[in-house]
Amino acid sequence: MHCVIIAGGSGTRFWPKSRRNRPKQLLELLNGKSLISQTTARLEKYSRAEGVYIVAPEHLAQSLNREVPHIPTENLFVEPTPRNTAPAIALAAFILRKRFGGDVVMGVFPADHLIRKEKLFHRSLVLAEKKAAAGPHLVTLGIQPGYPATGYGYVEFSREGSGDVHPVVRFTEKPNLETAKQFLEGGSHLWNAGMFIWRVDTFLDNLAAHLPATAENLAAIEHLIDTPKFAEALAEVWPVVDSISVDYGILEHADDIFTVETRFDWNDLGSWRTLYEVLPKDSDGNVVQGDVTILDSHNSLVVSEGRYTAVIGVEDLIVVTMDDATIVLPRSQSERVQDIVHWLKSRQRDELL
Amino acid sequence: MHCVIIAGGSGTRFWPKSRRNRPKQLLELLNGKSLISQTTARLEKYSRAEGVYIVAPEHLAQSLNREVPHIPTENLFVEPTPRNTAPAIALAAFILRKRFGGDVVMGVFPADHLIRKEKLFHRSLVLAEKKAAAGPHLVTLGIQPGYPATGYGYVEFSREGSGDVHPVVRFTEKPNLETAKQFLEGGSHLWNAGMFIWRVDTFLDNLAAHLPATAENLAAIEHLIDTPKFAEALAEVWPVVDSISVDYGILEHADDIFTVETRFDWNDLGSWRTLYEVLPKDSDGNVVQGDVTILDSHNSLVVSEGRYTAVIGVEDLIVVTMDDATIVLPRSQSERVQDIVHWLKSRQRDELL
Repeated sequence: MHCVIIAGGSGTRFWPKSRRNRPKQLLELLNGKSLISQTTARLEKYSRAEGVYIVAPEHLAQSLNREVPHIPTENLFVEPTPRNTAPAIALAAFILRKRFGGDVVMGVFPADHLIRKEKLFHRSLVLAEKKAAAGPHLVTLGIQPGYPATGYGYVEFSREGSGDVHPVVRFTEKPNLETAKQFLEGGSHLWNAGMFIWRVDTFLDNLAAHLPATAENLAAIEHLIDTPKFAEALAEVWPVVDSISVDYGILEHADDIFTVETRFDWNDLGSWRTLYEVLPKDSDGNVVQGDVTILDSHNSLVVSEGRYTAVIGVEDLIVVTMDDATIVLPRSQSERVQDIVHWLKSRQRDELL
Repeated sequence: MHCVIIAGGSGTRFWPKSRRNRPKQLLELLNGKSLISQTTARLEKYSRAEGVYIVAPEHLAQSLNREVPHIPTENLFVEPTPRNTAPAIALAAFILRKRFGGDVVMGVFPADHLIRKEKLFHRSLVLAEKKAAAGPHLVTLGIQPGYPATGYGYVEFSREGSGDVHPVVRFTEKPNLETAKQFLEGGSHLWNAGMFIWRVDTFLDNLAAHLPATAENLAAIEHLIDTPKFAEALAEVWPVVDSISVDYGILEHADDIFTVETRFDWNDLGSWRTLYEVLPKDSDGNVVQGDVTILDSHNSLVVSEGRYTAVIGVEDLIVVTMDDATIVLPRSQSERVQDIVHWLKSRQRDELL
C-alpha cells in the first residue's frame, strides 16, 4: 500500500509553540519526537520508507525533508499553497497513478495525530487495504468515540458487514451535544479521523464525479508529472482547484463507502488541553516541560522554552512561554489560543505567526 | 534638614522585574520614573539636592549615581555590603556629624515608597523637624492605617501631645489580624513606615546606648571620614557592626520618642498586588504594561517586557514576563514571589536573581 501523509496544517492550535513555518506536525510535543516522524515511522513499518509519501505546502517542504530525511525526495509532493485535503489527496492520486497505475491502493493519513497501539493500527490497515483492493470502495478508518465530542465528524455505519468492516450509512459533520450523546449511546457511529484507504482509480473516479473542475485541471497536466515542467504547471492550475476538504467535497456525496471499526487509541492533539490529557502527570496533576518551578498548583500545563517560568497557586491553567511570546489561559478554554492567532493576524503581527 | 535616603533593598518583591542589581528603587514601576528619582525629587523640594544623601550598598552605587546624577557624589554613602538599616543610618550620622556637627537635624527615608501628596508630606516634615530640633527626641512619621495590616510595624501614641505630634507609647511589630483590627478601631496606632527625623547627636547617643559595638566601631574610624582611607577602614569594621534594623535595634529600646500623625497618602509598593492597587485600571479592572493582549479577563495585572504576552479568560491573576523569566500567580498571593526567589537562591540560580 502507498501511504500518503497529508502534512498541511496552519500551526495555530499550539501557538506560541506552533507557528506558520513550524506547525504541529513538526513539533516535539511528546517524547522528544516530532509528530511527522512518529507518523512516518508508524507507516514505514507497514509500507517501508519507499511506500510513504508526504504532501505538503511549499513553505514546509524543506523543514519536512529535514525532519524525515530518509523519505525519498521524490516521495515529497509539494503543493504550491495549502488548499485543504481534497486537492492534496488528488495531487497524490494523480502522481501515484502515473507512477504505478490506477489499481494500486493508497492510504491517506494526517501527519499530526497520536496513535500508540501500532499493532492494532496495522491490523486495521490490513482490513482496510483488503476491502479497498476488492472493489471500487472508499474505505475510512473509524475511531471508537470516547466521549460525545462536538468537534469531530462522525461516520454512521450499518452492522450488515462482516467483522469490523461496515458499510457507511452517512457522514455527519460536528453534531450538537445532544446528538453527539445519542451517537455515543447508539453504538453505530464512529469518529471520522481523516484516514482513508482506496484504490487510486476509485478515488479519481469519485473526484471526477464530485469535484470535476479539480479533476480536469489536474488531468490536464498529468503528462508532466515527474518532468521538470510539472512544478510550474501545477502552480498555474493550483489556484483554480477547489479548496475543500475530502469529507465535504467527496465523501458526503459518494456511495459505496465502508468504514473499518478500529480498536487502536487515537488523539488528534487538537489543543493544549488534549496534549495535557495524553501526557503523564505528577502527583498534583501537573505537566511541566522545560525550566519550570511549580508550587501549590494543580492540573496545569506549563511549557517553558528558552527561559525560566515560575507558577504558584494556580488551578487548571495553561502557561506556555517561548522566546518571543507567552500565553496564559484556562485549560478548559485552550482552544481560544486561536483567538490570539486571529488577533495577531488582524494586526499584521507576522513576526509572531 | 539633611535628608538621608536608605537605598538598600534586595530586589525580591518584584521579581522577575526586580533583581539583586536592579532592586525596586531602580524600577520604573509607575509613570516612567524610578522610585529613587521620585523619592529624591520629593526630598529635594524640601532640602535641595545638596541636602539629599543616599546610603547604598556598593553593588548599587553606580546604578544609583546614574539614576540621580544631580545628587553630588559626596552625598552618596557607600556601604561595603547591605547590613540592614541601623548600620546604614549610623554611617550617615557619623558622616553628617563630621561635616556639619552633631546638632544638625537628619531625616531618614526609604528609597522605594510611593507618596503622592507632596504638600502634606512636606507639612509633616516641618512638624517633625521642629520637634527634632527642639530636644533629644527621636521622631517618626506615623502613617494613618488604611486597613488592619499584619505586615507592618505599628506605633502606639498618646493623645497628650499638641496637634499632630504625639509621644510614642510603644512600638509593636507585625501584629496578628485580631490585634491589627483593634489597633485600627482604637485610633491610637499608626503604621511605622521607616521615616525618622532626629538630631544627629540624638541618634548617635541612642546608638551608643543600644548598639554600642556598632557605635564604637564607627567612632574608631570617624577621623578618616572624607579621606581616601575611609572606604578601606569602613570595609574592615563593617562585618562586625550589628546587622539589625533601626526599629529593633534602637527604637524599641529608646525613650523620648515622638510620632507625627501624618495626613499624606503612602504605599510601600511591597508586592505586585500593591502595585496593581495603585495603578489605573481599564473597565475590566485589568492593568497591562508592555506588548499585551488580554481577552475576557478581569482584575489582573499583566506586565510584558521585551516580548509579547497573551492572556485569555483569567481572573485576579498576575503575569509578569521578562527576557529570561516569567511568573504566574494569583493576585491574592503575590507576596509568594519571594518563595520563588528563595527557591532560586537554594538552587544557586544566580543568573535569575
